[in-house]
Amino acid sequence: MLSKNQLSFINSLKQKKYREEHQLFIAEGAKIVPELLSSSIVVKQIYATSDFLRGNIIPANIERFEIKENELERISSLTKANEVLAVCEVPKYELDNESLKGKLTLVLDDIKDPGNLGTIIRIADWFGIENIICSNESVDAYNSKVVQATMGSIARIKLHYVSLTEFIEVQLSTFNVSVYGALLEGKNIYTEKLSSEGLIVIGNESRGISEEVQKLITDKISIPSFSHFKSGGGEAESLNAAIATSIICSEFRRR
Amino acid sequence: MLSKNQLSFINSLKQKKYREEHQLFIAEGAKIVPELLSSSIVVKQIYATSDFLRGNIIPANIERFEIKENELERISSLTKANEVLAVCEVPKYELDNESLKGKLTLVLDDIKDPGNLGTIIRIADWFGIENIICSNESVDAYNSKVVQATMGSIARIKLHYVSLTEFIEVQLSTFNVSVYGALLEGKNIYTEKLSSEGLIVIGNESRGISEEVQKLITDKISIPSFSHFKSGGGEAESLNAAIATSIICSEFRRR
Repeated sequence: MLSKNQLSFINSLKQKKYREEHQLFIAEGAKIVPELLSSSIVVKQIYATSDFLRGNIIPANIERFEIKENELERISSLTKANEVLAVCEVPKYELDNESLKGKLTLVLDDIKDPGNLGTIIRIADWFGIENIICSNESVDAYNSKVVQATMGSIARIKLHYVSLTEFIEVQLSTFNVSVYGALLEGKNIYTEKLSSEGLIVIGNESRGISEEVQKLITDKISIPSFSHFKSGGGEAESLNAAIATSIICSEFRRR
Repeated sequence: MLSKNQLSFINSLKQKKYREEHQLFIAEGAKIVPELLSSSIVVKQIYATSDFLRGNIIPANIERFEIKENELERISSLTKANEVLAVCEVPKYELDNESLKGKLTLVLDDIKDPGNLGTIIRIADWFGIENIICSNESVDAYNSKVVQATMGSIARIKLHYVSLTEFIEVQLSTFNVSVYGALLEGKNIYTEKLSSEGLIVIGNESRGISEEVQKLITDKISIPSFSHFKSGGGEAESLNAAIATSIICSEFRRR
């Protein structure tokens, strides 16, 4: 049975304001929740159907509530509720500038679309990128659409929200790091020398990399279009932010 | 002024059944609609705010209706209606097996998510892939979520819905084409020889490439994960279908 208080508490976590106040977020589904249970993420509560509770081992310290499918529907953010909803603690990662040395790090300049951020987190996980630095104006990574789009990768990537220009300036002055950014006038990524460490800046979905951040880019790169290979007129103008991220990460790692 | 009939007609086109009956689809927004107007897509009607009508040239043969913002909200599928909605003819492309010779073609084995299909169409446009072959069970490309996610690329890519196994069998027996498919046991795409022509099969979001289609793959490839580069346990299990498509297309074109 789901109490009125539980219902309104869980629904409140759909808003950033309450996630921040309680430092809690929601994850859903029979694929993602078991992944979180076996990760470093602290799961506080599980709301699940009897089927899920029978089929999964849930550590004793986690509060669990057996609820009916129709109750799950009432708290779910999914189009179709899927067996289980978990309330988890927002993890706290310290951003140690030194610890980024020798690594590739993604830097997101105002990614606004939750699906894009979730997909980028999943890409980072695949390509072994440990940290993602987000501008303070980026969408909240613990928004449930982001969490679901990560397919569990949210548990394995360290996210940091910072003032981007300050962060990049410190990295530049202290470590003389390479700051890569995809810009129209950039050099062909397929032929350019790429380092195995540095910052890769990804711009906002509509306006790209902001002017202030552009000034800090040390290595301008670009993904060439092959649109002209098609017969018929017209060319694609741009790639989606997550797609550009995947192509760039793939290029850095394949070397 | 929007009439009751117009309202219900436009809203009916949100359903595949009515799109098929009328062979019409909807596109929205001040970025995409002008692109469609200057493409080979036949635009039948424009519903737009006075601002849009003042700022854009609309050929005389297109019916136009000046409507208010709040009327646009009532017919829009977007979270926030954006100046204009166009009713367009679904283009008909003949699938000529011979015409695929010498080209790369994407083959989609039951892509179900509209956002993924839209993004894949945009990727095809960027990488100069002219045709996309979809299994009959794939999501409808003229679904408004797909159209919006293509950012206008829907006007430049030829989509064909077919029985996949039949199509691939004809291509194999007639042209002895290479059929590439991403499979776990596939060879490393970064080091494998890749042709500049052939079929690239992309599997369904949850079950991958179906068994029947797997039997027809001639060149198994895979995208290696670098997940172990991160400290801390756990690895990403998979990439999103559109992300995998972008990395594969990028690899084929960069050679």
